[in-house]
Amino acid sequence: MHARIPSTYLLFTCMSCSKHALSVKRSDDFSAWYQAVISGAELAENSSVRGCMVIKPYGFAIWERMQQILDTKFKELGHVNAYFPMFIPIDLFEKEEEHVAGFAKEMAIVTHHRLEWKNGKLAPSGELETPLAVRPTSELIIGKSMAEWIKSYRDLPILINQWCNVVRWEMRTRLFLRTTEFLWQEGHTAHETEDEAKKETLQMHNVYKWFICDILKMFAIPGKKPNHDRFAGAEDTYTIEAMMQDGKALQAATSHYLGQNFAKAVGIDFQGRDGSLHHAYTTSWGISTRIIGGLIMSHSDDDGLNLPSEVAPYHLVIIPIIKSDKPQEVMEYCLKIKALMPDGIRIFLDTKEIPCQNKKWNYVRKGVPFILEIGAEEIKTNSVYFTKRLGLEKQSMQLNEFVSQIKDLISLHDGDLAARNEKFCRSKINTSIKSFGELNDFFKGSNNGFVVSKWGNTNENLELLDDLAVSIRCIPTEQSGNIENCILTGKKATLDVVLSKSY
Amino acid sequence: MHARIPSTYLLFTCMSCSKHALSVKRSDDFSAWYQAVISGAELAENSSVRGCMVIKPYGFAIWERMQQILDTKFKELGHVNAYFPMFIPIDLFEKEEEHVAGFAKEMAIVTHHRLEWKNGKLAPSGELETPLAVRPTSELIIGKSMAEWIKSYRDLPILINQWCNVVRWEMRTRLFLRTTEFLWQEGHTAHETEDEAKKETLQMHNVYKWFICDILKMFAIPGKKPNHDRFAGAEDTYTIEAMMQDGKALQAATSHYLGQNFAKAVGIDFQGRDGSLHHAYTTSWGISTRIIGGLIMSHSDDDGLNLPSEVAPYHLVIIPIIKSDKPQEVMEYCLKIKALMPDGIRIFLDTKEIPCQNKKWNYVRKGVPFILEIGAEEIKTNSVYFTKRLGLEKQSMQLNEFVSQIKDLISLHDGDLAARNEKFCRSKINTSIKSFGELNDFFKGSNNGFVVSKWGNTNENLELLDDLAVSIRCIPTEQSGNIENCILTGKKATLDVVLSKSY
Repeated sequence: MHARIPSTYLLFTCMSCSKHALSVKRSDDFSAWYQAVISGAELAENSSVRGCMVIKPYGFAIWERMQQILDTKFKELGHVNAYFPMFIPIDLFEKEEEHVAGFAKEMAIVTHHRLEWKNGKLAPSGELETPLAVRPTSELIIGKSMAEWIKSYRDLPILINQWCNVVRWEMRTRLFLRTTEFLWQEGHTAHETEDEAKKETLQMHNVYKWFICDILKMFAIPGKKPNHDRFAGAEDTYTIEAMMQDGKALQAATSHYLGQNFAKAVGIDFQGRDGSLHHAYTTSWGISTRIIGGLIMSHSDDDGLNLPSEVAPYHLVIIPIIKSDKPQEVMEYCLKIKALMPDGIRIFLDTKEIPCQNKKWNYVRKGVPFILEIGAEEIKTNSVYFTKRLGLEKQSMQLNEFVSQIKDLISLHDGDLAARNEKFCRSKINTSIKSFGELNDFFKGSNNGFVVSKWGNTNENLELLDDLAVSIRCIPTEQSGNIENCILTGKKATLDVVLSKSY
Repeated sequence: MHARIPSTYLLFTCMSCSKHALSVKRSDDFSAWYQAVISGAELAENSSVRGCMVIKPYGFAIWERMQQILDTKFKELGHVNAYFPMFIPIDLFEKEEEHVAGFAKEMAIVTHHRLEWKNGKLAPSGELETPLAVRPTSELIIGKSMAEWIKSYRDLPILINQWCNVVRWEMRTRLFLRTTEFLWQEGHTAHETEDEAKKETLQMHNVYKWFICDILKMFAIPGKKPNHDRFAGAEDTYTIEAMMQDGKALQAATSHYLGQNFAKAVGIDFQGRDGSLHHAYTTSWGISTRIIGGLIMSHSDDDGLNLPSEVAPYHLVIIPIIKSDKPQEVMEYCLKIKALMPDGIRIFLDTKEIPCQNKKWNYVRKGVPFILEIGAEEIKTNSVYFTKRLGLEKQSMQLNEFVSQIKDLISLHDGDLAARNEKFCRSKINTSIKSFGELNDFFKGSNNGFVVSKWGNTNENLELLDDLAVSIRCIPTEQSGNIENCILTGKKATLDVVLSKSY
C-alpha cells in the first residue's frame, strides 16, 4: 500500500556500502573488530541511554528466529508462557540473602511515580513508600505467585516460561555481551520431588546444548559450575561454555537446580501424598540476547557476520544487475527464481533503487549464506551466478540445478560453518598443562584458549586464578576419570575442569 | 520426559471446579462479574506488586495468538520489529511539552542503581545523575534513533514496530483494563511526505478495525478523536471505540498522525529531493493487553468467557469419561478423534487424573468453543458427544460427520458470537437524542450505551459532559452528512459524534 516498499530487515544498508570489507581485522584488534562486525551488519548500536542498546531490525530478526526455535521446543516439553510484573518491591529481596547479595549492586531502583517541572527542568516527584527494583531475574516474584497457586502435589509440576526484558546495572557495557537492559527468557518450574527437579534442570541444560551446538553451530563445552560460581541462591548451576575466536569463554546459557531455597524463602509449600506439608523443589533456566554476541564471536570473519541457516533472516538474497535496456526482463527473471525456491527457503529480492556498485558487500557483511547477482548473462543462459558467503567463492549454476540443490547447499553451508569453528576451537584447547606454573606461563604469555586440567574441588588457592583473570569455567560433563594433580594445590584430584579467560 | 505431563495452558483448573457457573451475574454487578470471568477462566490476577498484574498461562496464550495475527499483518505491510531501551532520560521529555504534559503524572522514575543494607533493611543507593523514566510510550526514544539513521529521502520510509512492556502509573487499577505495567506493540514510522504519513496512519487504523471487528468479532465504531482528546503530541488520533456489555465504550486501539511535532523535537531531518533539509512526518500506533479486557466484556456471559476461534488457545477439548473397566479403550478412542481432526484445529485432550465430576465446567468458564465428553457410549456408536459453548446446547454426532463438519461448526460459532454481540450493541445505540437536556436525562437515568448525535467541533460547553462522566468517544468515519443542532450548544452542526461513558 506504500508507494515504495522498504527493504525489509535491510534498512539503512547503503550508508557504508562503498567499503568492501570491515575496517578492522580480527587479528589486529579483536574488540574493535567485534564492534565493526555489529555495525557492518547493522545488528545493534549504543543508544542515548547509558548502558542500553538499540537492537536494530536485522539483529532483532535473528533474535526472533532464536525465540521461535526455543519457544517451540519449550512448549513441546510441556512448558507454558506467562507474564509477571517487572517491578519487585525491594523488601521481597530481604527474603533470600544469598540471592540479594548476588544482585544488590546492579539493580535499577524506582523511587518516584511522576515528574514535575522545577526551575524549568523536570524532576522526580511522588515518592514511593516501598521502592521497586526492576527485575534482574524473577525467581522471587514468580515464586510468590507459585506459592499462591500450589496447594497440593496434584498442582505440580508447574512449568512456566517468560520472555521479557531484565535489568542489571552495568558500568562497562558492550553490545549484546553486557548491557544494562537485555532481553531473555527465564524458565521457572516447581516440582514435588528433588529427583524430578534435577531431571528438569538437566533436561533444559540439554536443550541449551542442542540449541547452541546443533542449531547455532557454536563450539561449546557443557558442564557444571564449581560451587563458588553458582547462581546466587542455587544448589547447582549447569552451563554451556562456548569458545570465542579470541580463545575466551562465553557463558552462553545456564540452568539452575534451586533445591528448596526459594521455596522456603517465599513459601512454596504443598500437601504431599503423605498428607503433610512439604517445600517444593524449584529450577530456573535462561538464555539471553548475549547469545547473539557469542554467535558473532564464533563465526564472523574479516568480511563480517556469518550465520547458521536456522537463525539467518534470509538464506539468500537476489540482487538484480540492471545495466541493459531491459530492466523489466531482469526483474521478471529474479521473480521467477524466487518463485521456484522450495518452501522454507527465506529469500530477499533487493529491489531498492539505490545507485550502488557494491550492494553485494552489504549482504556479505550481513552474513547472508548465498548472494545471487542476476543480470542479462544469467537470463541468456538460464542460470544463476552466486557468491557463497563462507569463503566468498563464486559460482554459476543452471537454474533448475540450483533449485534442486539449494537445500543441500544450505546444509553444506551449515556443516562448513560448524566444522570451521570446531577445528579452530579444538586447536585452542590445551590438555598438557599440569601445574599452576605452566598455567601462569600460558596465560601470562598472552595465550588464550581453554586449558583442561585437574581440580580438587576446594576453595584453596582460588585467588591465584584471579590474578591471571582466569576462572574455572565448568566441570565438563564428559570426565576422563583419571587421577592427576590439582592445578591449584598439587594434591591428587579427579575432576577435569576447563580454565579460561572469559567475557 | 516428565512422569506427569502438565495440562498445558490449563494449570490449576480444578481448584474451583465444583461450581458450575460464575458466582456473580452480569446483570447484578457488572464489575464483580468481569472479575469473576477472569478468575473463573484463570486469565490473570493481581500480583503482590501494587497495580501490576500476573498474566496467567491461559490468558497469555490468548495474547500470544493476538500477537501472532497482528505481527504477521504488520510484516506483510512492510514493517520490521526492533527493540529500543525501556529507560528514557527524563531530560529528553523536556523536548516535547505537550507530550510530557500528557504523561508526567504517571511515570515510574528510576533514581538509584543499587541496594544496600541499612539497619537490617534494604535501601536504594547509588543515586543517578540523570533519573530515568520507564517508557510510558516510545516516540521520543525511537525518534532519537531515527534522527541518527535518516540522512536522505532515500532512507525513508522507516517502518518499525516494537513488542514490549510499558508503564503508566495508575492509582485505581483493574485487570487488563488499567494496570501500571502492561504489554503492547507500538508502531513508529517516519515518512518523506505528509500525504504518505497520513496514509500510513489510516492504514494501521484499518488494520486495527479488521483485527477488532473481523478477528475478535467485537462490535466497534471506528473514527477520529476530537481535537481535545488526541494523543499528547499528535495532530490526529484515530480510534476504534468498542461497546462493552454495560454499554460503556472502550478505546481499543489508536493510530496517530504526529505531523512534524516529534521530528522537530528530536531532530528527524533529511535531505529532500530538492537538496534542502526537511523534517520527517511521523506516525505511531498501538494496541495493548487492554484489548483482552475488551474481549472479555464483549463476549462473556454468566457462565464465563467466550472466545472467537482465531484467538482461542483451543477450539475443542476432549474429556475422557472413564467409568468403565476399559479406561484404555476410552483413551484410544479419544486419541483417534484427536488424530482425525484437520490441520489448524487446536485440540486439548484432558488426561489429568483428578477426581472431578464437573471438568466440563472448567472449559465452559474458559470459553472453549466445543467441549467433547467421550465414554463407552460414544465408542459403541462411533460418535462424539459435545457441548457448544455458545448456548450450552448438547449434541451427538457420528464421528466421521463431526470430522468433516468441524471447520463449519467453528465458523458458525464465530458467526453466532459476532451476531449476538452486534445485536446487543446495536440495541444500545441511541440516535434520537438531539439536545443536551435529553442527553442529561438519558445518562442521569443510569442508561448506558452509545448516543450518536451532532457536535459543532468547538470546545464550547464541553465541561457539561464532564459532569455526566460522558465524553465524545469519536467522530465516526461514516457520517450522515446532514445538518442538525449541536448537542452542546444548540447551534447548527454537521459532525456526527459518538457520546458515551467509558473505561
